[in-house]
This record gives sequence, structure tokens and C-alpha cells, in this order.
Amino acid sequence: MINCLGKVYLVGSGVGSADYLTMRAHHLLTEAEVVIYDALVDEALLQLVPETCLKLNVGKRGGQPSLPQAQINRLLIEHCQHNQQIVRLKSGDPFVFGRCTSEIQALIEAKCPFEVVPGISSALAAPLLANIPLTDPVLSRCFAVLSAHDLEALDWQSLARLETLVILMGAKPLPKIVEQLLHYGRSPQTPIAVIRWAGHPEQQIWLSTLEAIVQQTSRQSLSPCVMVIGEVVRLQPFLQMPLSPENREG
Amino acid sequence: MINCLGKVYLVGSGVGSADYLTMRAHHLLTEAEVVIYDALVDEALLQLVPETCLKLNVGKRGGQPSLPQAQINRLLIEHCQHNQQIVRLKSGDPFVFGRCTSEIQALIEAKCPFEVVPGISSALAAPLLANIPLTDPVLSRCFAVLSAHDLEALDWQSLARLETLVILMGAKPLPKIVEQLLHYGRSPQTPIAVIRWAGHPEQQIWLSTLEAIVQQTSRQSLSPCVMVIGEVVRLQPFLQMPLSPENREG
Repeated sequence: MINCLGKVYLVGSGVGSADYLTMRAHHLLTEAEVVIYDALVDEALLQLVPETCLKLNVGKRGGQPSLPQAQINRLLIEHCQHNQQIVRLKSGDPFVFGRCTSEIQALIEAKCPFEVVPGISSALAAPLLANIPLTDPVLSRCFAVLSAHDLEALDWQSLARLETLVILMGAKPLPKIVEQLLHYGRSPQTPIAVIRWAGHPEQQIWLSTLEAIVQQTSRQSLSPCVMVIGEVVRLQPFLQMPLSPENREG
Repeated sequence: MINCLGKVYLVGSGVGSADYLTMRAHHLLTEAEVVIYDALVDEALLQLVPETCLKLNVGKRGGQPSLPQAQINRLLIEHCQHNQQIVRLKSGDPFVFGRCTSEIQALIEAKCPFEVVPGISSALAAPLLANIPLTDPVLSRCFAVLSAHDLEALDWQSLARLETLVILMGAKPLPKIVEQLLHYGRSPQTPIAVIRWAGHPEQQIWLSTLEAIVQQTSRQSLSPCVMVIGEVVRLQPFLQMPLSPENREG
């Protein structure tokens, strides 16, 4: 079923620094012959590949030019058929809004071996790095993860009733998200956290409520961000050492 | 604000082998003086700590004896106050059903420095390792993660309408989960995958539908498992190399 000695690794790069890369991802990067990466992948991770490794940025970030998917698929197959070890590096986790299906189906059709390697998703890690647990025995027995890329496709009536929501790509449509949740009965006092550049040195957090967040962030650049909506956000001040920046140092 | 040179690291151990440990978690384990771990943590990870490291199993798995939470908190504080480097190792990700709040609040009260290190959650990795993407541009714009530990606390009417559900600790209550979803209008033909021991050599997968899964698994031991319910499960056969076990080899 397999027609070459190459292999494609679809690898989640996690969030921010190499600290949150998996051991498997780190090992694969240090042996890669080709790395094909998305725009949101941290540049520092590219330092891990051998000097001779071919590095290809294929874009995939809102507003920036990116290679059409068919051409990305073609690149993966061609390098694999040249018996190379290819790391296809995606931000976060490859199976959470990573759009892998097309790439995997193309690889299967071309009989190219592949492996999918999980990564730390920003949907989970951004709240953690902002000191917000996604679950709590009383406040959050359930959380939903969604992308705000296509708001109309989502069932806001149901989402408004879930204890905790994690929203990716929500910077621009924030006013519409708030509008939908309030329309379907969510309290205007529901806490919300907006976490920008999670895991990076420039990480920023806004804490607010549904009724106040739009005005509070109106002149700020929020992207790329992860939002958490729900009562768990109230735990944030109680889960960090008060006034002690030194407790975050390794 | 801090009264000792010790430090407690609340670390997610990911799923299965050390391959899916983060670089940070790996580094911390190799330097740990004390490791305090839950029952579900893979024994192989404990091989990473120095020979002199004190290893304490505090249980926390259904049906097995475990140390009361207050005593776990006390252990963390005492070792920290003896200026030791303590890794508090939890399966998956510490902020997804990891019950960290009590431990963190105890550490803050005792002025013990700490750091929370994200891990690969089985909620995301189990579907990935079973070749099921949690999102898809058409089939799944949203997924919810829940624990079946306390079914009555959940809003099944809303959950039944979400595209994709990921359910942890659902082995025993599976018949009740199915009953709730069908009661609130989910189609009996909705696909479901039950993934047992994700990431371990003994990993097993059952693919079925809501109307058939209970009978199909009635004489099987399913725990510990992660379940995925929704149309994305149908992608599973199309995302793996047909009849080729060798494509999973590194």
C-alpha cells in the first residue's frame, strides 16, 4: 500500500515556545529534511531543524497570502516521493481547526506514509496560561470549543446555555458573539477573558463581562486571541500568587 | 510573598508514553526531588525521575483507594517548605478535569511558589490517535468536552444539539448518555466512537451508532475511555491508510 521510503508527519507545534512542544515533535523536527509550516507557528521552533533542512512557509493566516491547499498537498507528496522526512508543522493541535483532512486524504491517495502527532491546543493552553481552569466541580462540568470564523453556522441558542465557551478567532466578531449570547439569554454580567498571544512573552489578558468587553477593548488589537466565557473566569484572581511576578520564573 | 526555595510544578503528563510529554514536563521530571502522581499516570514516566527522587502515588482513580485531598495539599506544602522541587503529575492536562483549584489555593495560602504546565489532554488526543478530527469545516464547527461523572448536572437538551461531543469517564453511564441524547432528539444513527486506553499499546476502538453501541459493547470492559459522538466519526475510515499497519511505525 505504500510506494516510497519518505514519510509525512503532521505535527502540532503547541503554543508559544519549544517548552510546550511534545518530545515526539521535538525529535521529528531535529531530524526533518523538509519542514512545511503555517504562519502562526513560532519562528523559534524552526531553529530546531538541521541546517540542511528545507523550510517552507505556506501562510494560512487571516489577511496574509497563503499557498492554495492543493499546492500544499502537492508539496507534501512530491517531497515524500523523493524519500524525504517531512514535518508538516501546524500551530496548536493538528485535529483542532487544523484542516488536516484534505492533506491526509491526498497522502492516502498517493500512498504516502504519514503520522499525526498531537500538540498542545491553544484552546486549552491559553486559559491555563491565564490561570483559568476550563472545568470546575461546581462552576463548569462542560466546556465547548468553537471557531468564530463562521458565526452563522453555530447553534447559539445551545451554546448560550453551556457553562463555559472557548472561542478561537473571535477578535473581529466579538461584538456579534456578545450580541448572540445576550439575545439567547446569557446574563450581561457573565465573565469573559480575552487572552492574546498566549504563551508568548507579549501575552496580554483582558478580564471583563459580556456587557462591558466590547467597549473595554474597542481601541485594542486583540488578535491572535482565545476567549473564555463563563463563571470559571471568576476563579482567575484566586489561582495566582498575589503581586509576585517571581513565582512564574523557572 | 514567598517563603521558601522549593517549588511545586503541577504538570500534565499527557496520554500514554513519554512521546507526548511536553519538553518542559520532561525537563522538570528529570530534575524532580519529589513526584506526587495520580493512578492514571503512565508508570513509564516515573522512569524519567532521578534515582533519589521520592515517588508518591496518591491514587485518584474510581474504585481505588486514594489519599484525601487535604492530605495531598499538605504533602505538597511540606515538601515545598523543605525547599524541594516537587512535580505534581496529573494525567492529561491539569486544567481539564484535573481538580487543581484546591491544590493551588493551598499553595497560595502557604506562600509556596508554583507553576502549572499544560499537557496533552486525552479529550483531544484520544480522538486524534483514533483518526477522528474534532473539527471539520462542514461536519463540526464546534465540540463540547464533558465528564460523565455527574450526568444530572449537565444540560442534555443543549448538548444534544451540538455537532460533536467528547465524553470522559463515560464507560459505566453509557446507556444513560445514549438515553438522554435520544430523548432530546439526537438521531439514533448518530455515529459514536469509544476509544479505550488511547495512546497505549492496548488501545481499542469501537465504532457504532447511538442505537447500537450499548448492545455492541455490553460484555466489554470499556474503561478508561474517551467517547466521540457526532458526524466527524464518519471520517475515521477515510483518514487512515487502508490495511497498512506499517504506516504507523516511526
